Amino acid sequence: MRFARRGAAGAEKPVVVVDNTTYDLRPLTADIDGSFLETDVRARVSEAIDSGSLPVVDPEGERFGAPIARPSAIYCVGMNYAAHAAESGSAPPENLVMFMKAPNTIAGPNDEVAIPRNSSKTDWEVELAIVIGKRASYLDGPERSAEHIAGFTIANDLSEREWQIEISGGQWCKGKSGPGFSPLGPWLVTPDEVDAAKLRLRSFVNGEPRQDSSTSDLIFDVDYIVWHLSQFLMLEPGDVIMTGTPEGVALSGRFPYLKAGDVVELDIEGLGAQKQVFA
Amino acid sequence: MRFARRGAAGAEKPVVVVDNTTYDLRPLTADIDGSFLETDVRARVSEAIDSGSLPVVDPEGERFGAPIARPSAIYCVGMNYAAHAAESGSAPPENLVMFMKAPNTIAGPNDEVAIPRNSSKTDWEVELAIVIGKRASYLDGPERSAEHIAGFTIANDLSEREWQIEISGGQWCKGKSGPGFSPLGPWLVTPDEVDAAKLRLRSFVNGEPRQDSSTSDLIFDVDYIVWHLSQFLMLEPGDVIMTGTPEGVALSGRFPYLKAGDVVELDIEGLGAQKQVFA
Repeated sequence: MRFARRGAAGAEKPVVVVDNTTYDLRPLTADIDGSFLETDVRARVSEAIDSGSLPVVDPEGERFGAPIARPSAIYCVGMNYAAHAAESGSAPPENLVMFMKAPNTIAGPNDEVAIPRNSSKTDWEVELAIVIGKRASYLDGPERSAEHIAGFTIANDLSEREWQIEISGGQWCKGKSGPGFSPLGPWLVTPDEVDAAKLRLRSFVNGEPRQDSSTSDLIFDVDYIVWHLSQFLMLEPGDVIMTGTPEGVALSGRFPYLKAGDVVELDIEGLGAQKQVFA
Repeated sequence: MRFARRGAAGAEKPVVVVDNTTYDLRPLTADIDGSFLETDVRARVSEAIDSGSLPVVDPEGERFGAPIARPSAIYCVGMNYAAHAAESGSAPPENLVMFMKAPNTIAGPNDEVAIPRNSSKTDWEVELAIVIGKRASYLDGPERSAEHIAGFTIANDLSEREWQIEISGGQWCKGKSGPGFSPLGPWLVTPDEVDAAKLRLRSFVNGEPRQDSSTSDLIFDVDYIVWHLSQFLMLEPGDVIMTGTPEGVALSGRFPYLKAGDVVELDIEGLGAQKQVFA
């Protein structure tokens, strides 16, 4: 089951795709948000389709918004692929590293991205993103994480490296929250449709390959991340966790940073693709 | 003009105090949130009082909630008092240091605080908090900040130091977002009532003094903070910025960390006082 939000920014309509048919979700919910996701969505949607209460629609050509409404928080795991830690000049972390992005950074997967004013080091990061479906606090172990996950999507964890690293006093948040810095989507895919433990994820700039790895290389895997964070804070339905990026970003020194006119494409196996023009 | 939210958690009613009289704000707004604050609130409230459309109420004995509804983001300035930087083992920062707390950490100013499970280093931090009134992006200079500020309140930027520093890989967010870790209030005080550049701020544990300083000792002042952050991200109405804490916290090694039964009291000149029992 794949959820999406289609239409102009700020006026997206919730839809669901089942067996290649797209249904309007509005008879069930006004939006794809935490209060919808914390219900038993797969059962409710299946039942509604079976009973004929969801109209079939054809959103062909309509914009994709982020597949969930603005979350209450975006948590990010840093340095979660060994080769990316190395290209960033760090050893792989002993403990999971967490930082945050402002929720108002969320954008559609194909929206144009404005390089922030005075930025010279805007960088891409393809990441598997977890969307929380059920409040998670003090989970007993990673084996309890699955029941708190609504699904998965693609995130571009855009970063301004000068602000993140050089003028931050070491706290990364300053370089992570530029407007539009969290393209998300196109799909929120339910966990039954993908094996999050082995998904190929890639990025391209102007058609040239940059990142090409697999979530099987994650140092801390999806279930560990949800369990671990739940020991320190309360995850809420609709919250987003970006799980970290693999090697192949501009910070490595091997590629130039982004400039106006560049096109960034990201894909993750089973989750679709994003394409952003930078301006 | 002082705003507050009074009543049981989750059912707070917005009120305003003018000339020692408390008025029910509900004829004007359902809550004290970003969409209320971005209007010309002082003029609207004065007009409503003059026209007799706000009922006088007596909330004596009712709980104080946080004085604003859950913000879209909580930004925090780190190491913003030189003596606190020193007690934390750091030099004063050359650049403003920013990290974030999850918005679901917000609590009433006198709510009981549960020390998180497995915490051994829960610490207090009295701070002047700025509440944003108008969207701020790329402000031309610190002299433009005032028009984006709705008011000021007290924050206890509670922190778990082991999680923040020892098992964080250096990113502080992990130790800053425990449930209830952002007591806020009691009042949101409009800028005409206080001089944010010289407010005495203090904290006490079990009646013993801990912090006692003045916002005149801030390395980066209120106007600088709002301007500076606006260069890197978009501040939204209702967002909270905690401006940093002065020396006198447990991290210094001079005082024990908090344990069940401890009572923390905070006050800031002109903004009122908080009192939390830890459990």
